[in-house]
Amino acid sequence: MEGKDPLRTARDIPLKDIKINSGFWSGYIDLVLDKVIPYQWDALNDRVADAAPSHAIRNIRIAAGLEEGEFHGMVFQDSDVAKWLEAVGYSLAVRPDERLEQLADEVIDLLEKAQQPDGYLNTYYTIKEPGKRWTNLWECHELYCAGHLIEAGVAYYGSTGKDRLLKIVCRLADHIDSVFGPEEGKLRGYPGHQEIELALVKLYRMTGEQRYLRLAKFFIDERGREPYYFDIEYEKRGGRNHWSGNAHPSGSREYNQYHRPVRQQDKSVGHAVRAVYMYSAMADIAAETGDEELLDACRTLFDNITKKQMYITGGIGSTRHGEAFTFDYDLPNDTVYQETCASIGLIFFARRMLDIEKKGVYADVMERALYNSVLSGMALDGRSFFYCNPMEVWPEASMKNPDRNHIKPVRQKWYGCACCPPNIARFIASLGRYIYSVGPETIYVHLYAGSEVKTGLGGGEVALEQETQYPWDGRISINISKAEDQRFVLALRKPGWCTQASLRINGEECSVGSRLKDGYIYIDRVWSQGDRVDLYLDMEPVLVQAHPRLRYNAGKVAIQRGPIVYCLEQCDNGENLAALSIPAETRLETVYDSGFLGGAVLIKCQGYRTNEDVWGEDLYSRLRIDERPVTIRAVPYFMWGNREPGEMLVWIRSR
Amino acid sequence: MEGKDPLRTARDIPLKDIKINSGFWSGYIDLVLDKVIPYQWDALNDRVADAAPSHAIRNIRIAAGLEEGEFHGMVFQDSDVAKWLEAVGYSLAVRPDERLEQLADEVIDLLEKAQQPDGYLNTYYTIKEPGKRWTNLWECHELYCAGHLIEAGVAYYGSTGKDRLLKIVCRLADHIDSVFGPEEGKLRGYPGHQEIELALVKLYRMTGEQRYLRLAKFFIDERGREPYYFDIEYEKRGGRNHWSGNAHPSGSREYNQYHRPVRQQDKSVGHAVRAVYMYSAMADIAAETGDEELLDACRTLFDNITKKQMYITGGIGSTRHGEAFTFDYDLPNDTVYQETCASIGLIFFARRMLDIEKKGVYADVMERALYNSVLSGMALDGRSFFYCNPMEVWPEASMKNPDRNHIKPVRQKWYGCACCPPNIARFIASLGRYIYSVGPETIYVHLYAGSEVKTGLGGGEVALEQETQYPWDGRISINISKAEDQRFVLALRKPGWCTQASLRINGEECSVGSRLKDGYIYIDRVWSQGDRVDLYLDMEPVLVQAHPRLRYNAGKVAIQRGPIVYCLEQCDNGENLAALSIPAETRLETVYDSGFLGGAVLIKCQGYRTNEDVWGEDLYSRLRIDERPVTIRAVPYFMWGNREPGEMLVWIRSR
Repeated sequence: MEGKDPLRTARDIPLKDIKINSGFWSGYIDLVLDKVIPYQWDALNDRVADAAPSHAIRNIRIAAGLEEGEFHGMVFQDSDVAKWLEAVGYSLAVRPDERLEQLADEVIDLLEKAQQPDGYLNTYYTIKEPGKRWTNLWECHELYCAGHLIEAGVAYYGSTGKDRLLKIVCRLADHIDSVFGPEEGKLRGYPGHQEIELALVKLYRMTGEQRYLRLAKFFIDERGREPYYFDIEYEKRGGRNHWSGNAHPSGSREYNQYHRPVRQQDKSVGHAVRAVYMYSAMADIAAETGDEELLDACRTLFDNITKKQMYITGGIGSTRHGEAFTFDYDLPNDTVYQETCASIGLIFFARRMLDIEKKGVYADVMERALYNSVLSGMALDGRSFFYCNPMEVWPEASMKNPDRNHIKPVRQKWYGCACCPPNIARFIASLGRYIYSVGPETIYVHLYAGSEVKTGLGGGEVALEQETQYPWDGRISINISKAEDQRFVLALRKPGWCTQASLRINGEECSVGSRLKDGYIYIDRVWSQGDRVDLYLDMEPVLVQAHPRLRYNAGKVAIQRGPIVYCLEQCDNGENLAALSIPAETRLETVYDSGFLGGAVLIKCQGYRTNEDVWGEDLYSRLRIDERPVTIRAVPYFMWGNREPGEMLVWIRSR
Repeated sequence: MEGKDPLRTARDIPLKDIKINSGFWSGYIDLVLDKVIPYQWDALNDRVADAAPSHAIRNIRIAAGLEEGEFHGMVFQDSDVAKWLEAVGYSLAVRPDERLEQLADEVIDLLEKAQQPDGYLNTYYTIKEPGKRWTNLWECHELYCAGHLIEAGVAYYGSTGKDRLLKIVCRLADHIDSVFGPEEGKLRGYPGHQEIELALVKLYRMTGEQRYLRLAKFFIDERGREPYYFDIEYEKRGGRNHWSGNAHPSGSREYNQYHRPVRQQDKSVGHAVRAVYMYSAMADIAAETGDEELLDACRTLFDNITKKQMYITGGIGSTRHGEAFTFDYDLPNDTVYQETCASIGLIFFARRMLDIEKKGVYADVMERALYNSVLSGMALDGRSFFYCNPMEVWPEASMKNPDRNHIKPVRQKWYGCACCPPNIARFIASLGRYIYSVGPETIYVHLYAGSEVKTGLGGGEVALEQETQYPWDGRISINISKAEDQRFVLALRKPGWCTQASLRINGEECSVGSRLKDGYIYIDRVWSQGDRVDLYLDMEPVLVQAHPRLRYNAGKVAIQRGPIVYCLEQCDNGENLAALSIPAETRLETVYDSGFLGGAVLIKCQGYRTNEDVWGEDLYSRLRIDERPVTIRAVPYFMWGNREPGEMLVWIRSR
C-alpha cells in the first residue's frame, strides 16, 4: 500500500521498533504511561475529585444498554474515550501493560455493544437524539468522534495485533461510506470539525482499503463547494441548531474552513484545531494520491501559519472567539488563545509535510511547538493541564478582566471540554514517530532524543542508538548498533536555530556544510556495527526579536536557547514583570540546575527594573527614567506555572 | 432651597447668564446648535440615510394614540428623545431659536398625550408590555428613562420658563414616588441603570419639593441592601428576563453596583456609566443633606477612579464586557472600552464634587475628560460619533480580530444603542455650567473659555468677560465688565498639568504661590468695572509616563500639551505606528496650524522607526537593532479619525 504514492518519500517506522529510553523524553514517556493515562482513565470514569465529571464511559455503557441514564457532557464526549484508547494503543507498543490492556479491552467490549447493527457508533445520538443522525454535521461532531475512534482502532491494532477495535471502526467507516459520497442518494456533506479525513487515511494505510482513502478525499474535495452543504442541512432541519439557536451557518464559514474549496485557501482562518487537522489530511491525501495542487495549497497554508500567524512557542490561535486564527501578524500576547490541541495539530501537519519534502523548516516548527506550547499544556506531574497557553499572565487580570479570563494562571485538573489532556497523552505516547522516519535509502532523524530504533534499510536490518541530553545539551551521539557493511544514508537534522554545528564520524571531524541540504546533514556511506556519529549543535542562548509587523512585540525580546523559549516568572523576579527590561547587549548566563523541577538549564542576565517606590499616587506624570539594575532570571517556558502561581512573561521589554 | 445644604459651598449660575462667545468653544457650541441638534432630530425621526433607524419619535406617537404600530428599538429608546429635549433646553438658554422651540413643544405635546392618567410615561411598556410596569427594574430602564425626561423638564423650564414639560415630569415623579419607597405597600426597588437619582435632585432644586430629594436618597440608600431587590423581582416574574434569558441577577451584582450598600463601596466596579451617574447622585445628595458618610464614599470612589482606573484621556471602562471597570491599574490600550457617555458621567461626578470641595483635582479630571475622551466622541463636523474611544487602533484588527471589533476606526453615523451622541449634545450645550460656579463670596473659574458671565456677588451684580485662545494658548484675561467697588473673591483654577503660571492684576505682576490653595488662585479684593486679570499658564509640551503598575504602558510615553493629549495617526506617520519610538530626550516642537481641521497646535519631534525592509520572511530572529531617524508628527487626540482612516496610537514606545 506504500507503493501507490508518487509524493510520499518516507514512511513511519512502527512505534514498537522505536524505544525512547534515556534523557529528557524517557521521563515524559514514563509520566504519560504511569500517571497520565491512568489519571485520565479515572477522569473518564468521574473519579477525579474537584474536577468536572466527564461521564464519557457512562455514556458508552448507557448506549450499550448496560446501564440506565441520560447522556451527559459535550456532544463530542465520545472522542475523549477514543483519544484515551489511542494513547493506550501507543503506550502498549512502547511498554506492554496487561492491566491497561485489559481495561482497554473492556472499553472495546462496551463499544462493540454500543455499535448499532448498521455500524453507526455515537453515544450522543444513540441515547439522546435517535433518529437525528447526520442532521447537523455543522455542529455535532459525529464524523469528528468517528475519526478519533478510527485512529484508536488503527493504533490499538498496530501495537497489539488485536483486531476487535479495528473491525468496529471498519464497520463504522463502511457505514459512513454508505451515507456520504458523490453518488446519487448519498449525502454530499463533510464534517463541521475536521478529523475523520486524516483518520481515514490511517485506516487506508493499515487495511489497504482504497474506499477509505477515497472517502477522505471526498470530504476534502467537497468542502467549500457551492451550494454550501451546511446551508442545505440547516434548511432541512428547520433552522434549529445545537449550540447557536437559529443562527445561519453562513455567518461563520471561515470558522469551519468551508468558505471556499480547500485548494483555493491561501490563508489560515477560523478554528485553529479544525484548520491544522484538515491541512494534515490534505498533506496525507496529496502524499497518497500525488495531488500536486493539494500539496501546493498545503505549502501555502504552512507558510502562512509559520511566517505570519505563529507564536514564538509554536502556538497558534490569536483569539478565544472561535479559538481561531485572525490575520497576518496579529499575535497579541494578552488575549492570545494558543490552544494545546492546535499546537499538537500543527505538529501533525508539519510531520506529514516531512513525509513529502525533507525540509528542516517543517521539523523546526514541529520542534518549536513540541518543546514549548505542547509541553506547557501539561503540568510536570501530569495531573493538570492548560487549554490555552498564554504568552503573559497577570493573575488578577485573569480573574477580574473578562477579556482575559480564558487565560488561566494555574493548570486545571480537567475540563468540561477535555480535548487537550488526552491529546497530549496520545501525542507523547506516540512521540517515537516524530523522531524518525525512513525513505528508500535513508533514515531520517528529525528530533533528538535518547532512543533506539530498528528498521530495514540498505538490504538488511539496521539498528541505531541515539544518546543525548538534548534539549539541555547540544551533543548527540548516534551509534550503529546493527548493520553489516550496509550502504544507506543517515540524515541528521540541523535545527534552524543553530548557527554553529560540528560533526565527527568515528571520531574524525567532518564538514557539515558540504553534507547540508534544506536543514538536514546527509551522511551517505557503508555502515557497520560500532560506527559512531557525533553531532554537536551549539546552544548559545540568544535574545530573539519579532518581525517589525508583529506590532505587539515591538521593542521587546524573548530569550531562547536551542529549541527552548524562556519566560520570566514572578516567583523568580518579583511582582510586575512589565517593569523589567533587558539591554540589547546583556550577557545571557546559563546554568544547569539539577534541583530545579527535575532539572533544567536556567538563564540569568543583568537587566533593569523601574523603581516604583519613588512614584506618588498619580497615574500619569512627566517622564523621568528611574530604574535600578537587577538580575533577571528566566526559566523554560514549558515549565512555567509549576511553582507558586504568579505573573509570567515571554516578551520582555528591551532598551 | 439652597439654604438646607450644609456641604454645598457653591451653586450653578443659570445657563442663560453665561455666554460662550469666542475662541475654541464657541465653534463647538455653534456646531451643536446648528448641526448636531438638528441632525439628531433627523435621526430620532429616522431620516438619516445609511444610519440605523431610531424609531424613538414614532414610539411616542404610537403611545400617544396618534399612530398605529409596534414599538421598535431598545427598551430605553425614550431616553434619546429626553436627552435631545434636554439639549434643546440648554441650547435655548444659549441662543433662542423659534423653530427649534416649536419642534420641542410639539414633542412635549406628544409626551403629554403619551403620559398615562396616573402619571406613568414610558412607551415600551405602554405599547408592548402593558400591565408589566415595574416588573424588571434590573434590566428595563423605566427609571432611567424617567430620569432623563426629568432632566429635560428641568432644563426646558430653566431656559424657557415654560412649565408644560416640568409638569409632565412632576406628575411622573409623583407617580414614581407613589410606587417606590420604604412605606408598607410600596416597592423597595431601585433602578438597574442609575440616572433618576441625580435627576430627582435637579427636580428638587428646581421645585423645592423635598419629596423628590427624599426619593432620590431612598434609591441610593436602598441599593445593595439584603435581600437584594433584583433577586426578589426576578423570582416574582418567574425567572424570565428581558435580555438575558433566565440568568439569575446574582451573577452580576457588581455590574449594576448593588453588590453592597453604596456607602461601603470603595472601588469602582461594573458598568462605568451606571457607576458615575450613581456617584454623581451620591455627591448631590451629600451636598444637599450634609451626609458626611456619603461624601466620604464619593471621595474614595473618585480617588479609586482617577488614581487607579482612568485612561490618560479621562476615559473610563477597561472592558467591553459590561462596558465596565475591571480593577486597579488594569487599563489595556487594545481592548479598552472608554465609552463617551462614561467620560461625560465622570465630568458630572467631578463637577458635583466641586460644589462641595474646591479642589483642583476635580477640575483637572473634568478638563482631562472634556478635551480628550469626550471631544473624541464626536467628529469635527458633528455628524458621526464614537461609542468607544480607543487608545490605539489597527483597522485590520478591528475588522478581523473579534477581541478588537468594538474598536471602530471610523466614527459611526448613529448607533442602535444611541446613548452617546445625544449625551455629547446635551453636555456641550450646557458647557457654561462647567466653566463657572459661585459661592457666597467667590466666583470660581473652573475652565477657561472665551465667555461672559453675570451673577449676584459682593452685594450687587457682577459681570466678567473671559478672553482666551485656550486650550491652544495659555493666556487668559478676565475683565470685570460690571462691578461697583464690590468686594468678592475671584478664584482662578491653576491646572495640575501647569508647572509655571504667572498673574497680573491690572497689569501688575502678582504672586501666584501666595494666593494658591488646592489648585485655585484666590484673588480677594474690591473690584471695579474695568479691572483686568491676566493669567498665563505655560503650555510647554511634555512626554508623560504612566505609573509603573500600569503594565500596558511600561516603556511607553504619551505626548501632552496643556490639557490636550496627543496621538499619532497613520496619515502623518505611515503604516505600523508600533515601529516608531521616541527618545526620552527628544525636543517637542509645537506649531499652530490654522489650516489643520479648523486650526490646532501640532507637535513634531525626532524619533526612530524600525527598518522593515531589511527583514526577511522569518517571524522571529536574533535581535539586531536596525532603525532610522524619522520625524514623528502628533495631533490632538480628540481630532483623530477626521482625515483618512488608518492606525492611531496614544502610547508610543520610548527608548
